[in-house]
Amino acid sequence: MKYSIILLFVFFVSSAQIKKKQLNLMPWPQNINLTDGTFTLNQKFKVNITGNPNDRLFKGVSKFLRRLDGRTGLFLEQPFVTKTNEYSEAELQINCARPGKVGLNEDESYTLIIETNKINITATTDLGALHGLETLLQLMQNNGRSFYFPAVEVTDSPRFTWRGLMIDAARHFQPVDVIKRNLDAMASMKMNVFHWHLVDDQGWRIEIKKHPKLTELASDGDYYTQEEIKNIVKYADELGIMVVPEIDIPGHASALLSVYPEIGSKKSESMLYSVGRRSGIYDSALDPTNPKTYKLLSEIFDEVCPLFPSDYFHIGGDENNGKEWNANPVIQEFKSKNKIASNHDLQTYFNMKLVPMLKKHNKQLMGWEEILTNDMSKEAIIHAWRGVNEGLSPGGALVKAAKGGYKTVLSNGYYIDLLLSVDGHYLNDPMPKNIVLSKEEKDRILGGEAAMWSELVTPLNIDSRIWPRTAAIAERLWSNDTIIDLNSMHRRLKVISSRLEEVGVMHIRNKEVILRNITNYQDTRALNDFTNICEPLKNYKRNGGGKKYFMYSPLTLFADACTADASDAYDFDKAVNQYLENKSPENQIVVTSFFRKWIAMNNDLIALSANAPLIQPVLPMSNNLSVISKQLLLAIEEKQNVDKKALNELLEQLTIRNSADVELAIYSSLKKLL
Amino acid sequence: MKYSIILLFVFFVSSAQIKKKQLNLMPWPQNINLTDGTFTLNQKFKVNITGNPNDRLFKGVSKFLRRLDGRTGLFLEQPFVTKTNEYSEAELQINCARPGKVGLNEDESYTLIIETNKINITATTDLGALHGLETLLQLMQNNGRSFYFPAVEVTDSPRFTWRGLMIDAARHFQPVDVIKRNLDAMASMKMNVFHWHLVDDQGWRIEIKKHPKLTELASDGDYYTQEEIKNIVKYADELGIMVVPEIDIPGHASALLSVYPEIGSKKSESMLYSVGRRSGIYDSALDPTNPKTYKLLSEIFDEVCPLFPSDYFHIGGDENNGKEWNANPVIQEFKSKNKIASNHDLQTYFNMKLVPMLKKHNKQLMGWEEILTNDMSKEAIIHAWRGVNEGLSPGGALVKAAKGGYKTVLSNGYYIDLLLSVDGHYLNDPMPKNIVLSKEEKDRILGGEAAMWSELVTPLNIDSRIWPRTAAIAERLWSNDTIIDLNSMHRRLKVISSRLEEVGVMHIRNKEVILRNITNYQDTRALNDFTNICEPLKNYKRNGGGKKYFMYSPLTLFADACTADASDAYDFDKAVNQYLENKSPENQIVVTSFFRKWIAMNNDLIALSANAPLIQPVLPMSNNLSVISKQLLLAIEEKQNVDKKALNELLEQLTIRNSADVELAIYSSLKKLL
Repeated sequence: MKYSIILLFVFFVSSAQIKKKQLNLMPWPQNINLTDGTFTLNQKFKVNITGNPNDRLFKGVSKFLRRLDGRTGLFLEQPFVTKTNEYSEAELQINCARPGKVGLNEDESYTLIIETNKINITATTDLGALHGLETLLQLMQNNGRSFYFPAVEVTDSPRFTWRGLMIDAARHFQPVDVIKRNLDAMASMKMNVFHWHLVDDQGWRIEIKKHPKLTELASDGDYYTQEEIKNIVKYADELGIMVVPEIDIPGHASALLSVYPEIGSKKSESMLYSVGRRSGIYDSALDPTNPKTYKLLSEIFDEVCPLFPSDYFHIGGDENNGKEWNANPVIQEFKSKNKIASNHDLQTYFNMKLVPMLKKHNKQLMGWEEILTNDMSKEAIIHAWRGVNEGLSPGGALVKAAKGGYKTVLSNGYYIDLLLSVDGHYLNDPMPKNIVLSKEEKDRILGGEAAMWSELVTPLNIDSRIWPRTAAIAERLWSNDTIIDLNSMHRRLKVISSRLEEVGVMHIRNKEVILRNITNYQDTRALNDFTNICEPLKNYKRNGGGKKYFMYSPLTLFADACTADASDAYDFDKAVNQYLENKSPENQIVVTSFFRKWIAMNNDLIALSANAPLIQPVLPMSNNLSVISKQLLLAIEEKQNVDKKALNELLEQLTIRNSADVELAIYSSLKKLL
Repeated sequence: MKYSIILLFVFFVSSAQIKKKQLNLMPWPQNINLTDGTFTLNQKFKVNITGNPNDRLFKGVSKFLRRLDGRTGLFLEQPFVTKTNEYSEAELQINCARPGKVGLNEDESYTLIIETNKINITATTDLGALHGLETLLQLMQNNGRSFYFPAVEVTDSPRFTWRGLMIDAARHFQPVDVIKRNLDAMASMKMNVFHWHLVDDQGWRIEIKKHPKLTELASDGDYYTQEEIKNIVKYADELGIMVVPEIDIPGHASALLSVYPEIGSKKSESMLYSVGRRSGIYDSALDPTNPKTYKLLSEIFDEVCPLFPSDYFHIGGDENNGKEWNANPVIQEFKSKNKIASNHDLQTYFNMKLVPMLKKHNKQLMGWEEILTNDMSKEAIIHAWRGVNEGLSPGGALVKAAKGGYKTVLSNGYYIDLLLSVDGHYLNDPMPKNIVLSKEEKDRILGGEAAMWSELVTPLNIDSRIWPRTAAIAERLWSNDTIIDLNSMHRRLKVISSRLEEVGVMHIRNKEVILRNITNYQDTRALNDFTNICEPLKNYKRNGGGKKYFMYSPLTLFADACTADASDAYDFDKAVNQYLENKSPENQIVVTSFFRKWIAMNNDLIALSANAPLIQPVLPMSNNLSVISKQLLLAIEEKQNVDKKALNELLEQLTIRNSADVELAIYSSLKKLL
């Protein structure tokens, strides 16, 4: 008897474990416990809200209903939700104790309990309840005839309070609809901070009523009106997202200085600035010794600050290379007169002048890690971004800041514009593993933020650079630090990628637009196959020196259709590893079917190119891959001896920079076979 | 010698004729003459503007450059264009005599001459020049390696001055980005009037600062701020498009009356109105005897009129069924006291009170044809819309208006929400063929307007209801009335449909989103094949009585992925006709390959449905079609006798309304084979 009870118990646990593994939740909740049974959806399904939530929950529940309805086609009867206690008998009951306030350290926890005939979401605030609704949507399953939720108990809350995404709307302007759909996607991944990089060398993107010339002369007509900003901030708030604006100074100032050269650091006022048309670091810097500089900035802050209710204001502060300061004798004189030792200290002098301007509007200053010096106010938030690329230890500034008494946020390791593998981002934890930090120091590490710089993104391809990868970063910032299984992450990310389309993200559909453009509206299948094994050049190699692409160049080419984490490359590598471990016929077939696909693909691409010049740049690579594939087929299937040296040479040719600006993501897997 | 010259001449003409037929121009220009040679594009290609254009041409040329660059991947060097005479040596020279004014009867003509080393666009106004740029883009061709324009001379101007598209943003709200991308598409088809239906029973969609409750209580949060309206009007103006707002009164007023019931016609003020949640005609009507009605309307006009620079203001005026007026004794008393014979005359009384309110803002009143009565001001524009569906002669009001001294615009025959074949729209000419009209009467026929009512469209599927079909209407309104070849139109429309994607229209990409949702992110090919032979139910049958779909129901189902003019149905019908004419093996193969495709499709759909409940509603139809296909294969290939009666019964079953809300578009073609 005892024995059988134990067996039953073991069976129960393992069955639940297996089911748990099949769930497509992201970010993974802190605690989840599958119980028995399912809750089946039907047209009468209704939601009722009790307690004292902020109004954003009504909007959130209305949106939830429409998403549920769109996915199930059930014609749910319940219309827009506008108040509490509408349907006391509703199957889904949501209770919130009090209105949430969007910002740091607010209670975002929730409990979700699904039983066979009812669902309960309980949260301290509406912010937690909104997260619970997202988890509920992710739990939905079907049996081919109907849709249901598995019975489950979830208790959940975030590990970090700052789970951010930065979008650079300066290099390439990103219109309101792009921002909104990305906010929706963020909310679905339980992210809560949108950092909006609003100005840079290449454009001034925010209306300043007292200085209309900023947008008239330095935006090419592409900017946000203050009404649009307010509209987006409200939209974000309804999703539980805080918006932190960035006005990047004193460097990255070409656009600003093209309008007001008199506050620039160039030696002579007659030396002009112009809006940047290339990427890279410009020398332009505001003159920190000129009172007019502070007058203008103060006027700008007076307009910008009231648009954003958040407590934080990002002043950039990065990559001021000091060249203009060094070349200007007046600035040098100022330094020696005021005993300012270095340009770095001069920048701190500049930054400290900003603190009261922001404090006037109840804002704390935040800046990229270069603002961190001995004299910097302890109220500032340090945004750690540099690492190996800049010859520094990865995220070193984060630890330095935390130990130095500053609150800090990590972006090093989350630069998604570098187009590196998602694995690295996923395993990059804001909390350092090998450094001992006190409780207070740990508490100063607020979280992390994915950084989407926009040198090579337009509204057409930006979503495919942000998503689905940022969902993995969202999980890092929300979930327990023990959730690090890469296979599980990849499996779930694939499903999440699809579901992101539901909230309006265009990463899948816009890829197809680019493919149709390249093929001149012929069949896109072969080209799509090729994109699934190619990745855009990484680490800014695609536009090295900013020479090839102007900021007004199109981004409608093969490299724009490709993404990081090429999907077939991932599958091919798994197949190769399995085959090398065990050369069974089954494992062989999986590998060789890839070769057949790439041979056919090359033939198709050649045929398509007769009526599509944009295919030409990819043909050398696909030809080469086709030859290699044919040889490997002979070697594997016919056991023929092939000229390995020649094959290796062919393979190495694929690593040479090509005119398609991509790299072959299956290179190392092929290498294993040779 | 004489003989050979003649031969040469004949050859020259027919070669040019053949080449002309291969051009994918739409709307077809008034005069086009292909000459010898080509102009090849390269990176140095530049544009220069001379003369005295409106600034919109600079923006237009900048956009043109980016589209050209996106399509060719040439990395064109020329950045944003901001002034005249920038590059006197530029290959493309554009000259405009004077700034164009967006509005009726402005000069929109242009001449485009392409030679082997230069291109000239000459126009009186920038509006004409913008049209010339669109023609130039449509002329682009490639030889597999490079892109070029054929040498050509085009002189072109529109046949009608009103070439409009109406979008109903009331039933389903259409956000700013939806409107903008449709304006871009309109401009690419040389259309020049956007008629914006802003309010209806189901929603009040425009901010009124003096009456904020209108949007607070009657928009579900979905409306345009006045800033957004101004932004769109400016955007349209830059494209050469006039925006005509519509505030639909005195009927279609449920949303307005839900906020201000005191000006409604219900017998008692305590009888409430509510925002409409279904489609169909509501009884709600303003009270024309109540002075408060006019006070409110006047206040609304005072805010709305200044937002729109156009000379015209649409007051709706349609479908007031008079039920509330009849039931209200006060209104009946008013009629007899003022000797107003009918409700129709009472509505004219109401309309005439609006004329001075609009005149105050220099606006002429426009309204749906119901406003046409003996006492109506001759300044009004009559918008003809009724026809056979309403038991009237098609477009009868147009003739009546023109003869009666009114300017008039045709929408009867252009109701694209009916989801009828494009052929009918294309052949529907605003100028009546069989009725003798004087020159003055003809001049009063301003043109036509496609009408996109939004009971069953959301931002996800609206583009596929408007495009590409509206391009055929645009051609009817621009081109010569002799351009009526349906085969040519269909061939060109296919190419135009692709090119519309370049300006941002989402008809292709959003279809795929719907397919992915239905298949639960499995392979969409089979389902896509099925959409290509199905069409959504026509003539409002899909939502008969407005019972099935609420205004908040999702539009993510099979019928939403289907469109009018199902593409394979068109091809299949051609194949069947050819086969019946000549049962050659080649013709047989074309027909039978369809059957094989549909048999495979059905098998795939069954497999997909195991993990996609939304596939279930289409399975009965696809099963049925699969059985018919198998039988016809046997009959055609094996010459077997099949049970024709049973087959016919199966076929007729396909005409019964199904739960997928579509009809099989190959029904009549299959019928021919049986």
